[in-house]
Amino acid sequence: MLKSARSMPSLALCVGALLVLLQAASIVGAQADPLPSWNDTNAKAAIIAFVESTTSPSLETYVTPGDRIAVFDNDGCLWAEQPVYFQFLFAIDMARKKAAADPAWASTAALKAAAAGDIKGVLAGGESALIEVVSATHSGMTVEDFTAQAAEWIATAKHPTTGRAYSDMIYQPMLELLSYLRDNDYQTWIVSGGGVDFMRAFAEPVYGIPPQQVIGSLGKADFQMVDGKPQVMKDPGIAFIDDKGGKPVGIERNIGKRPIFVAGNSDGDLAMLQWSTAGEGPRFGMIVHHTDAAREWTYDRESHIGQLSAALDQAPAAGWLVVDMAKDWATIYPEVGK
Amino acid sequence: MLKSARSMPSLALCVGALLVLLQAASIVGAQADPLPSWNDTNAKAAIIAFVESTTSPSLETYVTPGDRIAVFDNDGCLWAEQPVYFQFLFAIDMARKKAAADPAWASTAALKAAAAGDIKGVLAGGESALIEVVSATHSGMTVEDFTAQAAEWIATAKHPTTGRAYSDMIYQPMLELLSYLRDNDYQTWIVSGGGVDFMRAFAEPVYGIPPQQVIGSLGKADFQMVDGKPQVMKDPGIAFIDDKGGKPVGIERNIGKRPIFVAGNSDGDLAMLQWSTAGEGPRFGMIVHHTDAAREWTYDRESHIGQLSAALDQAPAAGWLVVDMAKDWATIYPEVGK
Repeated sequence: MLKSARSMPSLALCVGALLVLLQAASIVGAQADPLPSWNDTNAKAAIIAFVESTTSPSLETYVTPGDRIAVFDNDGCLWAEQPVYFQFLFAIDMARKKAAADPAWASTAALKAAAAGDIKGVLAGGESALIEVVSATHSGMTVEDFTAQAAEWIATAKHPTTGRAYSDMIYQPMLELLSYLRDNDYQTWIVSGGGVDFMRAFAEPVYGIPPQQVIGSLGKADFQMVDGKPQVMKDPGIAFIDDKGGKPVGIERNIGKRPIFVAGNSDGDLAMLQWSTAGEGPRFGMIVHHTDAAREWTYDRESHIGQLSAALDQAPAAGWLVVDMAKDWATIYPEVGK
Repeated sequence: MLKSARSMPSLALCVGALLVLLQAASIVGAQADPLPSWNDTNAKAAIIAFVESTTSPSLETYVTPGDRIAVFDNDGCLWAEQPVYFQFLFAIDMARKKAAADPAWASTAALKAAAAGDIKGVLAGGESALIEVVSATHSGMTVEDFTAQAAEWIATAKHPTTGRAYSDMIYQPMLELLSYLRDNDYQTWIVSGGGVDFMRAFAEPVYGIPPQQVIGSLGKADFQMVDGKPQVMKDPGIAFIDDKGGKPVGIERNIGKRPIFVAGNSDGDLAMLQWSTAGEGPRFGMIVHHTDAAREWTYDRESHIGQLSAALDQAPAAGWLVVDMAKDWATIYPEVGK
């Protein structure tokens, strides 16, 4: 028997009272703007209309929560990518550290340039030099040790021109979009050309995306007993490039179904946009177009990073939303210290 | 203002009344047996003790929901695997179908044996013949077409000795364990040597495990425009073997952290058991030992399928639970038609 049951109001009355309160709270919730850093333009309206159309059980466009998969490119889509991919700046800093500890480490032209902090010198060596530097700084340790190094770098390094921490160069409007989708029972995933272990070092605290929802390029790895402890070691060499046609393959490997919401910003995202939005039922494709030289950077067809040309041409016919950063975003970066 | 607020009891009283009711309901819930097909042996007690220890916020062994990752081998752990892996029987049936439609298809000794349903003939060709048959029957189509074929086979094919559908040869005690873990905010994953697209064809309806929580071996794949439609095509050849040392690597690729609960049944699971249970904090390793010749099969050290020897030797010192099917399981398979 329940103690003090006599002094209690009836269950029906209680449930009634709570339901009224919950309903009032949910009306307030619905009226609050889920995307406050987006201007009141077509872009914001299109996103909200899509989310509402896929989450209203009475509509034919309703999508069950298990199929609400949203994927996002990272560089240039969730955070900035100029003057070069931040992961490359991390590799340069790691090279300096390794060479300082062991001058013999920088044994080739590419590694010497990296150890000297000479970004242009590394880039002059082309893709093979780039891969050499990334490979040499991203291998020879356990996955956990690497992630700890990357997390420390994210917590301390500063961007060369803005002076901000890299994790403060994420896009506030995209953070709100991620939260808005999750509040509507979407699973949010990263699908990026960046290295998966590098991104996992910050994806959860910065974007709210857990490690198992990060898809990226893969270095070689193997299982070893190290000093009697079982470890997954990061080995030299590349196992998988999660870019261009690799993105649908990466999604297939890790998710196993076509996402219904896909966001990118470059031709590296074109295949993922095409493949995802060609699926049955409601689909949403969007491209972040870097149009804001005053607050961020302006670049598209001719850029050496994040080139956007074919995807921009195909967007109108495909029905993909092209977000104009200058026009559609009220804010670019989060307020620092927030 | 709230309508009819005057006739309502105070919120505090309501919340109090509901909390008492919820508490009463949760006591009833806790008393219901979450693992009714497990006998009341040490195995069941150990599982329940671990789950309770990791989900009680007041204990030092508490694990936050985001870190409650549980991984399960599939063949011999969630469903049976005798006389040979079911996926191989699927490949044989697909070979028969392909050869019936096009007699020229069976162009090699291994494919001829497969097309004739000659399992021993294929196995006599060793691993290369096996890979040839799987590769030839698992490629040359879109991922979606392959998954549809596999789902149709699962829905119609029968096991050669039991006469059951393959999806009725799953282990009822393991189904209950999966549900019990999920009810306690564990994410349940498959980590198997089986092909990922094959397992995804039934993992969600049969085990309640969605496609993005299935890790398996990978065939080669690429993105293509097929008749103007963007597709991920399954190509001949193997891209990744998710077995032995490959299992920790597969988990690292798709999950990015060490699971805290790991279940297997063979030496193919040894590396995954070692790596997962070597992590910090509470960890649970378990091995399903096939000891029940009357209701299932008896095999371990000498078996050609699911060989269990080194992992069995290491279990006592490592503290892994060895489940004795004959002794610990009241039921093996679900009641058919349920």
